[in-house]
Amino acid sequence: MIVKAGILNAINQKISYTDVRIERSEEEVLVRLTASSLNRRDLWIQEGLYARIQLPCIPGSDGCGWLGGQEVILLPSINWGESGSFQSKNFQVLGMPHHGTCSEYIAIDPQLIYSKPNHLDHIEAASLPLSGLTAWRALMTQGHAQPGQKILITGIGGGVASFVLLFAVAHGMEVYVTSGTQDKIDKAVSLGSKNGVNYKDSRAFEQLSEMASGFDVIIDSAGGPDFHKLLRLANYGGHVVMYGGTLGNIDHINPQNLFWKQITIKGSTMGSPKEFREMLDFIGDKKVKPVIDRVFPLSEIDEAFNYMRSGNHFGKIVLDHTR
Amino acid sequence: MIVKAGILNAINQKISYTDVRIERSEEEVLVRLTASSLNRRDLWIQEGLYARIQLPCIPGSDGCGWLGGQEVILLPSINWGESGSFQSKNFQVLGMPHHGTCSEYIAIDPQLIYSKPNHLDHIEAASLPLSGLTAWRALMTQGHAQPGQKILITGIGGGVASFVLLFAVAHGMEVYVTSGTQDKIDKAVSLGSKNGVNYKDSRAFEQLSEMASGFDVIIDSAGGPDFHKLLRLANYGGHVVMYGGTLGNIDHINPQNLFWKQITIKGSTMGSPKEFREMLDFIGDKKVKPVIDRVFPLSEIDEAFNYMRSGNHFGKIVLDHTR
Repeated sequence: MIVKAGILNAINQKISYTDVRIERSEEEVLVRLTASSLNRRDLWIQEGLYARIQLPCIPGSDGCGWLGGQEVILLPSINWGESGSFQSKNFQVLGMPHHGTCSEYIAIDPQLIYSKPNHLDHIEAASLPLSGLTAWRALMTQGHAQPGQKILITGIGGGVASFVLLFAVAHGMEVYVTSGTQDKIDKAVSLGSKNGVNYKDSRAFEQLSEMASGFDVIIDSAGGPDFHKLLRLANYGGHVVMYGGTLGNIDHINPQNLFWKQITIKGSTMGSPKEFREMLDFIGDKKVKPVIDRVFPLSEIDEAFNYMRSGNHFGKIVLDHTR
Repeated sequence: MIVKAGILNAINQKISYTDVRIERSEEEVLVRLTASSLNRRDLWIQEGLYARIQLPCIPGSDGCGWLGGQEVILLPSINWGESGSFQSKNFQVLGMPHHGTCSEYIAIDPQLIYSKPNHLDHIEAASLPLSGLTAWRALMTQGHAQPGQKILITGIGGGVASFVLLFAVAHGMEVYVTSGTQDKIDKAVSLGSKNGVNYKDSRAFEQLSEMASGFDVIIDSAGGPDFHKLLRLANYGGHVVMYGGTLGNIDHINPQNLFWKQITIKGSTMGSPKEFREMLDFIGDKKVKPVIDRVFPLSEIDEAFNYMRSGNHFGKIVLDHTR
């Protein structure tokens, strides 16, 4: 069928909003999408910074919409596989190579379809899947987060980090954040963080140590030159989880700090269908509301990509397909 | 009471074998020690390379002997505490500041006393406690080792590494080792390892990759410049456990390798009473026999220290208190 969608035809080109032909295989069903949201992954694909890029492709890993009379959201983990510990060799993220959610319709495996949480509208629900799932696995499965523990979330503002913040607060943790701007720290505090520091401040790590004395869980997506300082802030038995590495390689790790304090460093990416189910149950139970930064109409998808690239947002950027 | 013992009176001095007065508190019992064994920790204390050294002190964390008519061994973890994940702030290792096992008698908390495994003689049993417990926790608790998995043990030959090897073989794992000498690789193979490489060989890591294609568990006590290459050898969901850092800081860790492969890096030190009990049950069940490199009479303790410092041993260096 022919649908209106955003499509990326080649690396470093703008996302065109235009008519696109999509095909439905026999195993797939058609979902009418009312909203989608953006993730850093979409930018990396546009910029050619992702592995095994196949174009043209409709971007988008997050979708909410209708299947018949049912309000649904989509699981973005395709072929996760049998293990809880890691994804299978056939694992894919929805939205390249499989056509994604920035489209009026998607043809999709019914196993990836879940009921929309009742307490969320379509915009909120569309912001949840990839970032929420990544945050859930990093925090709960890999980070072994417990109520009452102290947690540090670095680089607050991005989609995943904002969900880690929301989940940690709802889980009864004492939350601290870092950011490069005071506005984002203030926003984090308004969402339930206890405090935060500006990582551009030369005394940021001393300040964190004074504020919290130590952290049981640290969630990071930067890596890079300051990562080793995070390890010094970890408590005995602490979990340091990384789901990204935007600042590059990690150096200067002191082995004695690691082994004497029995610290765990854990890589995490995406999550399993089981974790998606757990996350949906949790946000339904705790009535967690995603943080939406800004909503664009689907027709302005390229503007939405450019806004995301600016890095000024806090929370999710959503595309409304109904206006 | 006055006993014959080895004693360290000051940093960088020889260990004297002489008469020493030991005191028994009301909570302690006297164990007549028939054998003890050495650990790197003892050398580090002698060389002043350990935290909060208090001297004079009788060294030794490992002991076997008699309590009345019972053959016993000693748990070297004092005040481990309540958590399975890490030791308490009051944690101590037996053998500084508490007088250790290189002595005819020790005054010790009865909670640290366990029955000697029946299938081991006193020399074998004395080789077990600290190294065996450290190996057990690193492999089983922190490494999540499973039968059938592939494991890499770096720097084979030391006490802990030799126990990791024995436990992994008995657990049904496919074991690979690294060493700086072919003799130690050959010895490891004779003990059940499948293969090994010389880490001085410039192609060592490529060879490991060709031999095993990847490892589910990697156990390391070196850290240092090559540690990041170990991470590249880890399978998806792999566990890399470090219980030491003799080669210093770790650099060049690639975050993407960590998070995409969902790798865990875990620090580990010593172990809990629960783990000691599990380890004793396992070696009794599997009839694991420690690897003894050489036995010295207690009176030659200083020679034993110097032999250990040479680094040429494979397995444990034991002191026989009965000759």
